[in-house]
Amino acid sequence: MNSFIIHGDVCYSADKNDLRTLENAYLICENGLCAGVFSQIPEQYAHLPVHDCSGRLVMPGMVDLHIHAPQYAYRGLGMDRELLDWLNTYAFPEEAKYWDLTYAYRAYHIFTKAVKKSATTRLCVFGTLHRGSTELLMDMLEDTGAVSFVGKVNMDRNSPDELREESAEASLADTERFILDTKELYKNTHPIITPRFTPSCTDELMQGLGELAKKYDVRVQSHLSENPGEVEWVRELCPQAKNYGDTYDRFGLFGNHTQTVMAHCVYSDDDEIARMKENGVYIAHCPASNMNVASGAAPVRRYLDMDMHIGLGSDVAGGHSESIFTAMVDALQVSRLYWRLVDQHSKPLNVAEVFYMATKGGGSFFGKVGSFEKGYEFDAIVIDDSLLPHPQPLSLRERLERAIYLGGDVKALKAKYCRGALISG
Amino acid sequence: MNSFIIHGDVCYSADKNDLRTLENAYLICENGLCAGVFSQIPEQYAHLPVHDCSGRLVMPGMVDLHIHAPQYAYRGLGMDRELLDWLNTYAFPEEAKYWDLTYAYRAYHIFTKAVKKSATTRLCVFGTLHRGSTELLMDMLEDTGAVSFVGKVNMDRNSPDELREESAEASLADTERFILDTKELYKNTHPIITPRFTPSCTDELMQGLGELAKKYDVRVQSHLSENPGEVEWVRELCPQAKNYGDTYDRFGLFGNHTQTVMAHCVYSDDDEIARMKENGVYIAHCPASNMNVASGAAPVRRYLDMDMHIGLGSDVAGGHSESIFTAMVDALQVSRLYWRLVDQHSKPLNVAEVFYMATKGGGSFFGKVGSFEKGYEFDAIVIDDSLLPHPQPLSLRERLERAIYLGGDVKALKAKYCRGALISG
Repeated sequence: MNSFIIHGDVCYSADKNDLRTLENAYLICENGLCAGVFSQIPEQYAHLPVHDCSGRLVMPGMVDLHIHAPQYAYRGLGMDRELLDWLNTYAFPEEAKYWDLTYAYRAYHIFTKAVKKSATTRLCVFGTLHRGSTELLMDMLEDTGAVSFVGKVNMDRNSPDELREESAEASLADTERFILDTKELYKNTHPIITPRFTPSCTDELMQGLGELAKKYDVRVQSHLSENPGEVEWVRELCPQAKNYGDTYDRFGLFGNHTQTVMAHCVYSDDDEIARMKENGVYIAHCPASNMNVASGAAPVRRYLDMDMHIGLGSDVAGGHSESIFTAMVDALQVSRLYWRLVDQHSKPLNVAEVFYMATKGGGSFFGKVGSFEKGYEFDAIVIDDSLLPHPQPLSLRERLERAIYLGGDVKALKAKYCRGALISG
Repeated sequence: MNSFIIHGDVCYSADKNDLRTLENAYLICENGLCAGVFSQIPEQYAHLPVHDCSGRLVMPGMVDLHIHAPQYAYRGLGMDRELLDWLNTYAFPEEAKYWDLTYAYRAYHIFTKAVKKSATTRLCVFGTLHRGSTELLMDMLEDTGAVSFVGKVNMDRNSPDELREESAEASLADTERFILDTKELYKNTHPIITPRFTPSCTDELMQGLGELAKKYDVRVQSHLSENPGEVEWVRELCPQAKNYGDTYDRFGLFGNHTQTVMAHCVYSDDDEIARMKENGVYIAHCPASNMNVASGAAPVRRYLDMDMHIGLGSDVAGGHSESIFTAMVDALQVSRLYWRLVDQHSKPLNVAEVFYMATKGGGSFFGKVGSFEKGYEFDAIVIDDSLLPHPQPLSLRERLERAIYLGGDVKALKAKYCRGALISG
């Protein structure tokens, strides 16, 4: 079993307002679980090997609650459009190529290599509607050592011919097959039910997906209230629904039966927020994407004050970087513009809060993940911040802050552990 | 003399709406000046050596119109405050240390090393109020091969004791000495008159600085209308002035006598903008800083539509990165939030526009700089974008767009030329 000690400068969140920083500390991994952080090695662990990471930052692995694997290939392209236009012009034509397993292999090879090199240990991933290439993606993600939920996407309306399933029935049959194929196949990779978003899914499809979620106890991910044009379209498509969230909720796809994560939540109304709170729905806050496709700025302060479940998402390729360090900085910056331009009662986020979202906040979607408290799964990264020279002395907390602002650089990542296994470095 | 040919995939701006991309092209440098871009080598240049950069991106060097050298040491720190509070808590105490030449050397060593590794070939730099360490900084900047204007900062009021000059008279005498010391000393490094901002400078000091600018034909840089609290403070300090810009203008520090660059211009009113236009004042747009210290979002679309002089500034350490690639992305993103949250008549910026600002827009402050048109000074960078793998074919324009979004990475920078000399790579 995986038992060892890391000696270094340890940072982790116990809570959104409780960022802990311990210089020269010993972080114990016992059988893949965290046994705590100590200033000296406790007697009962004295026999364990010590990995010397003195002077380096040791923190939980990053959690990405929302990323589109097939969009990685065109990240940083076509960012001159709003969401719906961008989907039709760039995202859908590219995703349509993934019926071809050779193309999918080439693209997913690039994507999974980037995941391996990144600081991310946990991900919620959208594939495409193609079962074959999504299962290929899962094979490749399993090889990265990271833990992921991966969805074959469902789309049976309002999509171009080459990226639309034949019928709700065909989509559901394919999804059931996908679940049965993959549910027990991997150690770290799990299927997740993934209606693309309400505009792409008929009621019949939504209904069937809700039943599959319940039948197989499979989680759910989708998009919610991202962009004014999209929200308005959902209102037109579903006049009977109380709001966008209700279009999932009425079919059991909103945390009612199984854990659910919804990306964006920029324009959620009071009722939608109340239902998310009640159902324990996770929010994947994706600030870069919200800027890039001109969606807006999410009311993150409100979600934090309400103790909602919230983490960060890179949302590649609405976002152009897979780095959750970058997502932390984007979240800080957008929260300051939100305060300045939208609501001066909404206090900007601070470093402790975005670090919490990037680790423990999003991590709890995966169980006891994202912290170094006793009993947490042992996900950790080691960062060499000597690559960021400075003339003045800095506290560990300052070093962490600086590493977040300047740490998108994968060169600085020296080691990555997931569930106690060294998976990179 | 420096005469040679670069063969590669060439991108440059002829105008803000005229982004030119030429695959497999020959870019000619003749005696340090650009002789044009050709699809085949013209007969008269057939004797020149060819640098083979096939398959690589070749573009003008980046121009940073606003950066604080002494703040580089604490970039990415203390970004939880608004401008005035941030200055007092972080910036001023740090800058006060630069009376010590040893400290200054250590910090400026880190800064100038970063400048050398960056894609930037031209910079407008703030030092501190200390003449000695600012002259040291100029020596070190000269060694980078980049061309810069560097200012000894003037501050004679509203600053802590350890970062305030004794009197306007002393400040002016020191500044005159600084100008005389450095005006003819370097090939690439020039003094620039640098009142920190109106709150830090008495009228007497401003008056004297305006006279020095005229007497020695030295340019001017400062801050303008960055943050609501700052603008309000200037209004209180200078009740007789029509607006913030007027506090410089009345003393000949607003493009009246010599070229002037003003950072930020987030809250400039109509009259201020009209005077900037009339006087040809340059705007250094610093989007990361405007987010980080919660200043807001500048009306860049308006400035572009009015054909104002405008370029980009990293504003380290209000901005946390010295990369002008990052500044381009930040400018795109902030313009989208400005459109969404402030004014839906203000069309978001596009890639051609931010690339123009990063090169030719800011470059014109330095003369014929920032383009590959005939007669321009030969500043160029070579970028290996094969480090950004992709499964699909991409046009050169798409490759440029992607390099901008993903190109903060200095690893990709393979060569940097300034005035025809290879200065890095």
